[in-house]
Amino acid sequence: MPTLSSTQLTRISKSLLRAAGTSEEEAETVTRFLVNANLAGVDSHGVVPNLIIYLQGLRSGDIKARAKIEVRMESPSTALIDGNWGFGQVTCSRAMEIAIEKAERSGVGAVGIFNCNHIGRLADYALMAVDKGMIGFIAANCEPYVAPYGGRERVLGSNPLCYGIPAGNERSVVVDYATSAAAEGKVRAVLFKGEKLPPGWIVDSQGRPSTNPADLYEPPLPPERIKLAGALLPFGGYKGYGLGLVVDMLAGILTGAGSSQDMTTSGWLANGVFLMAVKVSQFVPLSDFTQRADRLLDAIKNSARAEGSSGILIPGEPEINERERRLKAGIPISEKAWQPLVDACKQYGLDVQNLMRT
Amino acid sequence: MPTLSSTQLTRISKSLLRAAGTSEEEAETVTRFLVNANLAGVDSHGVVPNLIIYLQGLRSGDIKARAKIEVRMESPSTALIDGNWGFGQVTCSRAMEIAIEKAERSGVGAVGIFNCNHIGRLADYALMAVDKGMIGFIAANCEPYVAPYGGRERVLGSNPLCYGIPAGNERSVVVDYATSAAAEGKVRAVLFKGEKLPPGWIVDSQGRPSTNPADLYEPPLPPERIKLAGALLPFGGYKGYGLGLVVDMLAGILTGAGSSQDMTTSGWLANGVFLMAVKVSQFVPLSDFTQRADRLLDAIKNSARAEGSSGILIPGEPEINERERRLKAGIPISEKAWQPLVDACKQYGLDVQNLMRT
Repeated sequence: MPTLSSTQLTRISKSLLRAAGTSEEEAETVTRFLVNANLAGVDSHGVVPNLIIYLQGLRSGDIKARAKIEVRMESPSTALIDGNWGFGQVTCSRAMEIAIEKAERSGVGAVGIFNCNHIGRLADYALMAVDKGMIGFIAANCEPYVAPYGGRERVLGSNPLCYGIPAGNERSVVVDYATSAAAEGKVRAVLFKGEKLPPGWIVDSQGRPSTNPADLYEPPLPPERIKLAGALLPFGGYKGYGLGLVVDMLAGILTGAGSSQDMTTSGWLANGVFLMAVKVSQFVPLSDFTQRADRLLDAIKNSARAEGSSGILIPGEPEINERERRLKAGIPISEKAWQPLVDACKQYGLDVQNLMRT
Repeated sequence: MPTLSSTQLTRISKSLLRAAGTSEEEAETVTRFLVNANLAGVDSHGVVPNLIIYLQGLRSGDIKARAKIEVRMESPSTALIDGNWGFGQVTCSRAMEIAIEKAERSGVGAVGIFNCNHIGRLADYALMAVDKGMIGFIAANCEPYVAPYGGRERVLGSNPLCYGIPAGNERSVVVDYATSAAAEGKVRAVLFKGEKLPPGWIVDSQGRPSTNPADLYEPPLPPERIKLAGALLPFGGYKGYGLGLVVDMLAGILTGAGSSQDMTTSGWLANGVFLMAVKVSQFVPLSDFTQRADRLLDAIKNSARAEGSSGILIPGEPEINERERRLKAGIPISEKAWQPLVDACKQYGLDVQNLMRT
């Protein structure tokens, strides 16, 4: 299992994207988001498998290199953006920049995006706002994998949302998760390990609760192809289901991107996206905000543990710790993930040994 | 057990508030929110016990009648409001009006409130935005009753949030809930019935999961007084805990009202409040939005049920159905709730029989 430094992984990813015809800026932006996901330990949103899928998308025309990002509607604190099927990371980071500019002037910026490809991990967009002393919010919808509370049909996406909030001492709170109990990728990981699922993650095709990961899929089982038979369940029952529905309406319907009902289930990764930036100092001085945030976070962190608890985490803390670890120790890439990268380099005539130089 | 029409309950509530020295507008606004909660079947947020507590608050000076609502900071799409400890319902409905005015002009309005008394049920504020073709959001923090995920100490409030989103055919989606698995009042209700709690609602004073409602309290048990020994748990584990923390930071820290760490545990009901209105037609035509919303809601509503499911509900639907029922059949008031109302009428020299006329 190779272990790559972030510099090595960045060089490979950027070189592949440039070789596939993207602009320097596109290669830089997409790579930054993918490698940041790997550094955070969120490998499902990292370079593999996503870069490989994006390269396919460029070849099939699902992703357009050098696409123009167009503002279709605008007001002092809102914008509606047509991504013209460019890279999701490029469209979405530009959208967050626009939200931040609007929040700088008007206190709040809210931006919707349609014709948008996969944007990847949400946290880094929210953190763009945090870096400017703002609260960032982002929600994305996607194709339906999740049953409503009480149901068994897949009618909602895993519809993730993320809040990023500044705190003191260069800390921040990052609440970033799917509104399903678990993402499909986690079910697949349990399947590969031959283990059982925790209760509450899925129902089978008959709507029966199941802890057998195979019950989520129609045969043949992954990795052959992914066709679902059962459904993922929302986190937290009725409450989490409501939140997932809100995400579909904000990110899918308000933006015109389309709700889960409008999405093809081609497996191609499109996102509707709604995001916001709120300028803290338009309400209270930023230093007051971060001091009070620190007091609250310290009180939580230092509070007594429940029986059997391994500790109390601030949302976002595990990913920050993993980032520090992987910046030093490198990013482990499984053999199954490494081979497609090597193959892609070969396909685009790149010397992988040279890209791996330290 | 008396059953009152909403007209009768409104007349009693308004008369008591007027007799206690409030303005006509205050009496009207506070009563409307309380009676609407009763009509929706959310009796914990209804006339009893809240009106009785508010009358005590007027006498103690915790609630100031005819308080001035002051805008302390303002931008094209934000405002920070000092409620000067007037009625929460009056301050908060004015704040939502300001958010709607700003959203009308700028696309989005975001308003924070401090020095704010109990605002009651959130749904009706969000629905003010829905009535104007907007998406409404409101979050409130309150004194700490909830342990963080993995913890046993009460460091977060039950911190409710609400989204109201327009749909077609005079429908709407209303996602309105505490970020704890259940509110304290529900634990008390189970205690009174002598039943067991569902798992996941509380931990006892030692941080052990418990289904015994008495484990939440220090003796003597309610209704004597309410002092907690254990803690409520967040809904949906780590994910719901993160959402509760976000609410504390938006409603408590961003507004200057104070996080749960700054709140007294006097039992007096203060709220920090953050709310927003987003104008739908600044993104897509409202009719497109509501048509697509209907398609999504119909797909959810008509999807197949899980095993053992009693049906699939759109968030907000049970409350709308109950409202229709109670508007016809009246609002049942328990004997335990009725007596304090009769006593209060006596105290303020009001003829309860006359107020009950049909």
